[in-house]
Amino acid sequence: MATTLTATIRAVAVTPKQPGSARQVELPMPTITRGTALMRVLEVGIDGTDTEINQGLYGEPPPGANFLVIGHEALSVVEGVGEGVSGFRPGDLVVSTVRRPDTCPNCQAGESDMCLFGTYTERGIKGAHGYMGEYYSEAPAFMVKIPSALRPFAVLLEPLSIVEKATFQAWRIQERMVWQPARAVVLGAGPIGILGTILLRLRGLEVHVYAKSAPESLQGRILTDLGATYQSVVDHPVTGIKDELGQIDFILEGTGNSAVAFEAMAQLGTNGVLCLTGVSAGNRSIEIPADVINLQMVLGNRVTFGSVNANRRYFEMGLEHFQQAEQTWPGIFERLITRRVPFGDFLSALDRRPEDIKTLLTIATA
Amino acid sequence: MATTLTATIRAVAVTPKQPGSARQVELPMPTITRGTALMRVLEVGIDGTDTEINQGLYGEPPPGANFLVIGHEALSVVEGVGEGVSGFRPGDLVVSTVRRPDTCPNCQAGESDMCLFGTYTERGIKGAHGYMGEYYSEAPAFMVKIPSALRPFAVLLEPLSIVEKATFQAWRIQERMVWQPARAVVLGAGPIGILGTILLRLRGLEVHVYAKSAPESLQGRILTDLGATYQSVVDHPVTGIKDELGQIDFILEGTGNSAVAFEAMAQLGTNGVLCLTGVSAGNRSIEIPADVINLQMVLGNRVTFGSVNANRRYFEMGLEHFQQAEQTWPGIFERLITRRVPFGDFLSALDRRPEDIKTLLTIATA
Repeated sequence: MATTLTATIRAVAVTPKQPGSARQVELPMPTITRGTALMRVLEVGIDGTDTEINQGLYGEPPPGANFLVIGHEALSVVEGVGEGVSGFRPGDLVVSTVRRPDTCPNCQAGESDMCLFGTYTERGIKGAHGYMGEYYSEAPAFMVKIPSALRPFAVLLEPLSIVEKATFQAWRIQERMVWQPARAVVLGAGPIGILGTILLRLRGLEVHVYAKSAPESLQGRILTDLGATYQSVVDHPVTGIKDELGQIDFILEGTGNSAVAFEAMAQLGTNGVLCLTGVSAGNRSIEIPADVINLQMVLGNRVTFGSVNANRRYFEMGLEHFQQAEQTWPGIFERLITRRVPFGDFLSALDRRPEDIKTLLTIATA
Repeated sequence: MATTLTATIRAVAVTPKQPGSARQVELPMPTITRGTALMRVLEVGIDGTDTEINQGLYGEPPPGANFLVIGHEALSVVEGVGEGVSGFRPGDLVVSTVRRPDTCPNCQAGESDMCLFGTYTERGIKGAHGYMGEYYSEAPAFMVKIPSALRPFAVLLEPLSIVEKATFQAWRIQERMVWQPARAVVLGAGPIGILGTILLRLRGLEVHVYAKSAPESLQGRILTDLGATYQSVVDHPVTGIKDELGQIDFILEGTGNSAVAFEAMAQLGTNGVLCLTGVSAGNRSIEIPADVINLQMVLGNRVTFGSVNANRRYFEMGLEHFQQAEQTWPGIFERLITRRVPFGDFLSALDRRPEDIKTLLTIATA
């Protein structure tokens, strides 16, 4: 009987629903099969979802597994391609999308972000291992090729895709009327808030950002450099912004605080649109001025919509906007990367600090 | 000095903001001027807005006046046309639109229902006299010609236009994604609820209506005849309808009860749309499960939007749907007219009774 030495890789996994279970695991090295590519992970962005999964709030292992490899924002390099894979070759930089379709009409039409049946999987979140390991296997349909000039910040493409969808959908919704938005409010100054501000500034809007950070924080300085105003909610509560600003055409809610979401609803201007992007995993009830909000929604033709995930189309839009924004504000995206943590310190990376904008877990350096 | 005998007309007016001020007034007979037509009013529908204006909740007189002629749902006949009026001649049946544009981009583009500046006027509601009198003067741009076959129920065109807009806008919003709605819920069984049900049934949807009336009420029987289900909220509270029905693609909120509006938000299915059409004139605060609603909105790409008024385009859509619906359910619209009140009894007409669907004030009989 021969002994087989199996190659293994390191990854970061959790036991879903079990708080603080993040740990290093060893997995078999993925093999290159027909129609798939082998991806070597360079770096993985950490976001609130990763932290909340590690807090045990949600997350689901793949079928048959009792752990979930986390990580859904990864920049990788193609290590090898299987038979039948065209359009990619070893050395190509890639960011993979997150959601994998089910059989619903939306998924089948290429918009798994609008999945109707809810039986999609999401790598690193729901029913499929993520990217926080040394290698993973991927099908070309979910791989977005990254121009090498974008290497320093391309890991931000996944969070950028979230606000690409949010803003695209808002503008798409408003094609129903004459809509010439001039003023936007962004709630939250994390990656979603800042990337959203970039897209709104590229669209030519006046942007006002409100969040918890102090005005002199890095977040505040970046936003000011983008030509937005930044105010701390300590002095400028959300309930007062429409009195402060006047007509607000678009609000991007990026805090995931449901109280803020409903406060924002009451701040929208006539024909205004509120986009909710934040996941509120709790079970809080709050009192709201229901008559006033309902009346305003009706009389002002206002819209509130939720936006989750992003399909491949939004990743591709993000590539365009990366380039436009870098031309307008050189170096802007690299300023968002505030910590790079080596693989062994993944627990530190998962521990979000107030001064963090985007933390990266470095898996390989080239 | 000669004495001039001026012809006068009778009308119903209120002193806005003064509860119970509805009274008969005498006004000068409108004259036919260049570019206007003289309209002889046949009948005027009463709705919640009229009642609420007479309760002193809102309403605004024309500039310089201290009273407001109410009424905004009128079927009239052209009595005479001024120079420069084309497309209309004496004897034509007409329903006039309600809102008059200001200088905002939306109004200038023919969508005064989406008015951005808010300085529009509304006949019978805000800054312009309404139709609850014997004659009024009108410009052709706001006159919708009614085929004579629609005479028996054409007075319902204004409330129909409200749900034309609400449904059209919902479908327009959802052009942003693959959306094949199959099941709708309608909240409220007044004219808005029933007319909304008619449009949704014409679109081929399964429709479930929830309201206060008993199942054996006329409202319930009409809705059942339309192929909808009807349930009383006494046995079937709004908070339970998604458990009762499963995936709900569209909800039309027609009660104006803000608590119902926010309950409805939590009942929407994935990719679902809630349209709010009811004006909640109070100042009530309520407690809502904010985390859950926000989370559902985000994860399910849900939309809530408000819809008010209707521009001319929706009146024209209504003419088409009048004919389609009459072919499908002959006599359906006349069943909605549950009381016809002679002019002198206008106070009785303004007093809404639970068994009323649509009350008409009869001004002239031919």
